[in-house]
Amino acid sequence: MFRSHTCGELRISDIGKEVILSGWVQRSRDLGGMTFIDLRDRYGLTQLAFNMDSNAPMCEAARKVNREYVIQIHGKVKERESKNLKMPTGEIEIIVDKLDILNTAITPPFTIEENTDGGEDIRMKYRYLDLRRNTVRANLELRHRMAIETRNYLDKQQFLEVETPVLIKSTPEGARDFVVPSRMNQGEFYALPQSPQTFKQLLMVAGFDRYYQIVKCFRDEDLRADRQPEFTQIDCEMSFVEREDILNTFEGLVRHLFKTVKGIDLGELPHMTYADAMKYYGCDKPDTRFDMRFCELNEVAKGKGFKVFDDAELVVGICAKGCAEYTRKQTDELIEFVKRPQVGANGIVYVKMGADGSIKSTVDKFYTPEELKKWAEILNAEAGDLLLIMAGEANKTRKALNDLRLEMGTLLGLRNKDNYQCLWVVDFPLLEWSEEASRFFAMHHPFTSPLVEDITLLETDPGKIRANAYDMVINGVEVGGGSIRIFNKDLQKKMFSILGFTDEEAQAQFGFLMTAFEYGAPPHGGIAFGFDRLCSLFGGSESIRDFIAFPKNNSGRDVMIDAPSVIDAHQLKELGIDVTLQEKK
Amino acid sequence: MFRSHTCGELRISDIGKEVILSGWVQRSRDLGGMTFIDLRDRYGLTQLAFNMDSNAPMCEAARKVNREYVIQIHGKVKERESKNLKMPTGEIEIIVDKLDILNTAITPPFTIEENTDGGEDIRMKYRYLDLRRNTVRANLELRHRMAIETRNYLDKQQFLEVETPVLIKSTPEGARDFVVPSRMNQGEFYALPQSPQTFKQLLMVAGFDRYYQIVKCFRDEDLRADRQPEFTQIDCEMSFVEREDILNTFEGLVRHLFKTVKGIDLGELPHMTYADAMKYYGCDKPDTRFDMRFCELNEVAKGKGFKVFDDAELVVGICAKGCAEYTRKQTDELIEFVKRPQVGANGIVYVKMGADGSIKSTVDKFYTPEELKKWAEILNAEAGDLLLIMAGEANKTRKALNDLRLEMGTLLGLRNKDNYQCLWVVDFPLLEWSEEASRFFAMHHPFTSPLVEDITLLETDPGKIRANAYDMVINGVEVGGGSIRIFNKDLQKKMFSILGFTDEEAQAQFGFLMTAFEYGAPPHGGIAFGFDRLCSLFGGSESIRDFIAFPKNNSGRDVMIDAPSVIDAHQLKELGIDVTLQEKK
Repeated sequence: MFRSHTCGELRISDIGKEVILSGWVQRSRDLGGMTFIDLRDRYGLTQLAFNMDSNAPMCEAARKVNREYVIQIHGKVKERESKNLKMPTGEIEIIVDKLDILNTAITPPFTIEENTDGGEDIRMKYRYLDLRRNTVRANLELRHRMAIETRNYLDKQQFLEVETPVLIKSTPEGARDFVVPSRMNQGEFYALPQSPQTFKQLLMVAGFDRYYQIVKCFRDEDLRADRQPEFTQIDCEMSFVEREDILNTFEGLVRHLFKTVKGIDLGELPHMTYADAMKYYGCDKPDTRFDMRFCELNEVAKGKGFKVFDDAELVVGICAKGCAEYTRKQTDELIEFVKRPQVGANGIVYVKMGADGSIKSTVDKFYTPEELKKWAEILNAEAGDLLLIMAGEANKTRKALNDLRLEMGTLLGLRNKDNYQCLWVVDFPLLEWSEEASRFFAMHHPFTSPLVEDITLLETDPGKIRANAYDMVINGVEVGGGSIRIFNKDLQKKMFSILGFTDEEAQAQFGFLMTAFEYGAPPHGGIAFGFDRLCSLFGGSESIRDFIAFPKNNSGRDVMIDAPSVIDAHQLKELGIDVTLQEKK
Repeated sequence: MFRSHTCGELRISDIGKEVILSGWVQRSRDLGGMTFIDLRDRYGLTQLAFNMDSNAPMCEAARKVNREYVIQIHGKVKERESKNLKMPTGEIEIIVDKLDILNTAITPPFTIEENTDGGEDIRMKYRYLDLRRNTVRANLELRHRMAIETRNYLDKQQFLEVETPVLIKSTPEGARDFVVPSRMNQGEFYALPQSPQTFKQLLMVAGFDRYYQIVKCFRDEDLRADRQPEFTQIDCEMSFVEREDILNTFEGLVRHLFKTVKGIDLGELPHMTYADAMKYYGCDKPDTRFDMRFCELNEVAKGKGFKVFDDAELVVGICAKGCAEYTRKQTDELIEFVKRPQVGANGIVYVKMGADGSIKSTVDKFYTPEELKKWAEILNAEAGDLLLIMAGEANKTRKALNDLRLEMGTLLGLRNKDNYQCLWVVDFPLLEWSEEASRFFAMHHPFTSPLVEDITLLETDPGKIRANAYDMVINGVEVGGGSIRIFNKDLQKKMFSILGFTDEEAQAQFGFLMTAFEYGAPPHGGIAFGFDRLCSLFGGSESIRDFIAFPKNNSGRDVMIDAPSVIDAHQLKELGIDVTLQEKK
């Protein structure tokens, strides 16, 4: 037996017990007469005591034990003289009478502590050492708990977890697929799924009624900071439902997760249309932890001779509460901020609402104090506030003001990561026009149903159609999204044709789904949550990588195992493929 | 709202309620004055009644509704006149006052009934229709329940579910990998995991202590009847454990599954050494639902002038209880059976122990009745029994007699699929010698630890070393297997060298694991269960395909979606590969 207890288990009530512990040496302190070792495992730390007076040879042996050695000890639980009440085991220590070294360890390339001295690259290469750190392990424990609670909730709601295949068929629509050459069918390829979308719809046709899966998905995209080529979704689909049924069910899931995992009562979630989200926040995933809504000023700001505003499609502002006393330096920094290429604006007009009732702005020569007061009224500003106003092409200006709003929220401490504000954004546009391809693309995917009241626009003005689609947004992050699906084969055909598929292309790629729709498809809809993202949000981190056991870097490499790698000629030959190296971009 | 209740929900206590139901038309009966429709969903069947007298137009409409149409009805629950107590909803019916056709259906290519008229091929092509059948859906509901209960048990035992990567590195040892060309690292490939073996070991090095995952694995092998290119494992690993700890923990899992899913109390599982399994059953996964053990007869059967036995390495028999009266036709059929190429034996010597005390055999001229009685004693045979004896090269003979034993078990009705007999087989050989490659191969994998008492044989007689490995066998099926792992880097190096790896090869393929072992690896071991197989066993089926939602056929094709398939030239170019078709085998 390697241990009778874990290193996080023993308490004052265990005093006098003979115990066996195994674990890693976190640190050791040689105090002359006594040597202490903190022994670590996943469950905690326990202090081991070696006494020079009573057992010199073993105390000597203990002094030779280095950091991260794996040891086993036999000993007796004793009350500590100087207790450490911050540690669960801090009232006891073990008087060791047998010490066995199970494995030695060379010195780790970084410290195994809450705050390590290791940089990102070295920690990724030695990920198994990084995972020894409590903070990193706690992230993955959280992930485990989230998965368990997700399944518990969905199981209680009669959802069945069904595994859909990983080796499927490549479809050009959407992002780039990873493909897998088939040895038994040379010249042909499987694709790894970007999502189980068509399979879950087929499960609805099959009458499964309620499906879910916590499932790996794959996307061969150029990686941005927080994208991974393989990622995990909570993927769900329901039959005989309308949008409200789905929103209620998955609001329930998110409430259950917050309650069981974080002890937070969410309450009911607000719904916001895409149009309102764009109008009041300039983005489709508003951070609603703070208000600072956009107010449009076209009617009061244009036509007064200020050319920047007069030429603008949109003049729009936000009110930063209590910021009237911002210094020139501070306002300059905000202007710097919006001028950065990521934001791309030309500048900000600001109006300071002095505590004394005075009004000062950068456009005093175009507007009277009364006119500026009108702006302040529209923006709900009071004495002491700062108005920040931007203007230009509508979409671009909204996007830039959204960035500024978020920056102000951060500066004013309004984006506390422990304050969770969730909402549904609904009624997204169904289609996006691509000037480049000169055709419509599906904003979500080609299976999304239009709103019933917009179906007539299919013939007349497809760009105006709203989708029966919804996103769940938490603290400005889109954590999930879905839609009511098309379940009528004629409407589905129509949709493919609007998206520029010929009948033959639609048949070749999605023929099996179109055929399935002929055999009695029920009304259905679903949702998928980004599980990595949801975990990172619950963990209070901006990086999903911290919540993935073995993540890949921005070039899609696993630097620990060194993958991808070359394979031998024999393997290539069996697969019937050759490598034809292109110049790298 | 599409429904107020499901089709499996309404009871006599609901009489008088106004309800809304949605589902598929299972069948309809037109009885002139009345038309009845059985409405089906995942939860059951409910009878709908349409009355010609009270609502002729709707009754007419109901008559036009075909099999598998998707309909919605509003109506009132009424007590049935002729009740069907076999159905949970059989005491009630719905008097319909509103009928909406949600979707039409063309006639399915096979009947959606318990026993369908559709062959395997057509059912695979229309898998979404096959999945509508109760039996098929019940298999996947069982699978869902098995997964939930597996997770519940392991979670309570403090196991953490950790997702390991799917895009990993190809290793030539073991079965063939599926590979994935990397676009961002052209000329390099990921591999899909055959198992998360090295990752779970790294998680032990990382101090995760107890890991599990229900995980997809991949093997590019020529498919046999019941193999799938992608399959699912319950994959587990534990630290600071000896073999008994692992056997106890996972015996607990299997007991929990039998208890919660099937209501069966398993009791404690017997352990059998590999040597005994081979000796008494001729195979390493004995079906212990029936005894009929092998008894070796070399000492009593050789040296009496019967050349077949005299030349044989092994003479070995089984006793078929109560089969002495088998006719010539029956014994001939057994001989036919063993002569089939799959079994490959030359024949059977049989001895009939007559109810009257007479003894008759096919070798009467070589053996006296006293000598044959001696055989009967060794085989524990009584009057009325039939002895079946085979001889030849030991391993081949054992294999053939195993086949015969199983055949006899089937003939005698001793292999009831509802009788579950589980056991552990332990102490497997560590290595297998390959004449072809003229080197040893790992019987399990290169990370398996030898039994401590056999380690000295590493230098002297590697072929004799027993592994600290174990399989769980249920009803003659290996459902899981694992081992205590090597956790010492020197021993691991030694093992790679015995397996014919150069230091460079070992470093190139498993360097990250060897390096990890330098930083304090704990003693650890684990197990993996074949989840598809376990589900099929619980479901009483021999085919794992029945327990996979979307299985592939024997050529690795998904005939429903038609994958694999060709991909376009642009995709190939981006990946830096070319197709070089070989002749097909």
